[in-house]
Amino acid sequence: MESEPAQSANRAVTLRDVAKLAGVSIATASKALNNQPQVRAETRARVIRAAEQLSFSPNTLAQGLITQRSGTVGLLTSDLEGRFSIPILMGAEDAFGSDQTSVFLCDARGDAVREKHHLRALLSRRVDGLIVVGARPDARASLGRDLPVPVIYAYSPSADPDDLSLVTDNVGGGRLAVDHLIRHGRRRIAHITGDETYGAAQDRARGALERLGEEGLALAGEQVWFGSWSEAWGRGATRMVLQRTPDVDAIFAGSDEIARGVLDTLHQENLDVPGKVAVIGFDNWNILAANARPPLSTVDMNLEQLGRLAAQRLFAAIDGTLEGGVETVGCRLVIRESS
Amino acid sequence: MESEPAQSANRAVTLRDVAKLAGVSIATASKALNNQPQVRAETRARVIRAAEQLSFSPNTLAQGLITQRSGTVGLLTSDLEGRFSIPILMGAEDAFGSDQTSVFLCDARGDAVREKHHLRALLSRRVDGLIVVGARPDARASLGRDLPVPVIYAYSPSADPDDLSLVTDNVGGGRLAVDHLIRHGRRRIAHITGDETYGAAQDRARGALERLGEEGLALAGEQVWFGSWSEAWGRGATRMVLQRTPDVDAIFAGSDEIARGVLDTLHQENLDVPGKVAVIGFDNWNILAANARPPLSTVDMNLEQLGRLAAQRLFAAIDGTLEGGVETVGCRLVIRESS
Repeated sequence: MESEPAQSANRAVTLRDVAKLAGVSIATASKALNNQPQVRAETRARVIRAAEQLSFSPNTLAQGLITQRSGTVGLLTSDLEGRFSIPILMGAEDAFGSDQTSVFLCDARGDAVREKHHLRALLSRRVDGLIVVGARPDARASLGRDLPVPVIYAYSPSADPDDLSLVTDNVGGGRLAVDHLIRHGRRRIAHITGDETYGAAQDRARGALERLGEEGLALAGEQVWFGSWSEAWGRGATRMVLQRTPDVDAIFAGSDEIARGVLDTLHQENLDVPGKVAVIGFDNWNILAANARPPLSTVDMNLEQLGRLAAQRLFAAIDGTLEGGVETVGCRLVIRESS
Repeated sequence: MESEPAQSANRAVTLRDVAKLAGVSIATASKALNNQPQVRAETRARVIRAAEQLSFSPNTLAQGLITQRSGTVGLLTSDLEGRFSIPILMGAEDAFGSDQTSVFLCDARGDAVREKHHLRALLSRRVDGLIVVGARPDARASLGRDLPVPVIYAYSPSADPDDLSLVTDNVGGGRLAVDHLIRHGRRRIAHITGDETYGAAQDRARGALERLGEEGLALAGEQVWFGSWSEAWGRGATRMVLQRTPDVDAIFAGSDEIARGVLDTLHQENLDVPGKVAVIGFDNWNILAANARPPLSTVDMNLEQLGRLAAQRLFAAIDGTLEGGVETVGCRLVIRESS
């Protein structure tokens, strides 16, 4: 559609023009027009006067803010299988619609040299911000505070509390799993989980124990069975739990891989799932959970929601400031047929 | 470390200087010094003379070639789980060392609007080339011939035969699997595989039948069992194969997921693996294959090698030309305990 000449003239006015006329930086002009607190009243007044003088309307203002961004976010990951990063990537893109944001994923493979190289490559491509996803949900080194774009740590928190980290509420996830089992009448609940050096393993166990404690219940199998994040461990630990507590009526597994091993041993022992023993996993990794026999109930970490939140915080930070700290994202139950 | 002034002067000589002195383009100078055939002998001699005159050493030549590139490749994928793209990404990066190339992965999710947006985003970020990875190993639409950078289709070939496509030799993979079973004395070999509309399913079956035919053997179970790429199908089809051919002594599964279902039913029927029935899968998807009971022998598509090859072809195309066609990458056996 052809537009009127007067409108065309209006459209050509950018935030850059307003900033220039007011004698401030584009960032300051943006903050002033967005009513953000970091701008002095006198500066704000000067920017608003300039905007009025140039007929810079709220509508063109919005356009100006959008064009200030490149619409591109870098996702720096060390999650080799893409298992946690891909849902976070999808959530981040969904936060702004399919034709407005691209997330570029770079895999650092836990290698500091490669991470540095990727970081340089992404920054030189003018990404608007960075999302950093670690290989495991424990604190990782900060990229530092002197980068030209905002950085958000997702899944693995930054070791620097001044950075913003978005992480899974693993304590809440553990509570959810056990709460579900209790509400379905289970009382002798065992917990088989992964490597005890993982904060996530500790947190999930803590949530499970808290919820059991509220019902006056103890853990079946006498202890938390820490081991490795593998099917083999799920198989072996289930055998040990059955020896110590033959009447166990539910097993909460710390990952879907472990849960697959639990199911395998229960089948070998001819124990019906869920008739005799209910099983619930953690991760909702579709390939393992949906295809299990029977299909596996599990706890989903809502990683896409975590990605959406990361994108929203990033874009807010581009126009304003980024507050440090750790925010948690809640889990949800995905109930299939094993519980 | 401070360097000597004389060395500094040498270092400052670039391919651009050589090209200028020889009166040719940078691309031509690069081709001439790389002994590529598209340059006339007279031009080549002139470029070499210029290089000598400027003390342009082979070492600085290599540096010059590298700085011509941005060292960044875009990987446009629709492989939602990253299962095929991540190994291709790793191979592409490995082709040039950890600190020289970054691959930016964008997930189009099979959505044309999103693909177009990502393509624009990658091109505006001056990537040196593009690798396109489809969601399934069948032909996909070409991105067209008018892009400013070379494009290579990996895993899924382009529908346009003038594009360069690098694909898995699925016929060869099927042959490999059956050859392995035959060489270990198996004679009654069944084949359970995925969706028959997938070219890969047809090709793997063809390779299997070819190799059986060479030994004068027929397929056990009377047919190729096409179905879906799932554990559930592996379970159900194994039950049918056992009904028709109770003395089956090996099952070649068209994917590791199917193989997991095959193993599950064999266990339920108390048939020892590999004592009574050998099982081999396809994909070498570690999470499924290495953790199976027993650990699963499988065919690996060498996707990292495919990625390395894609990067090499891309960078060759930047300095020269890109020939169209379809190149296949061979598979390899990964023998674990199920066969």
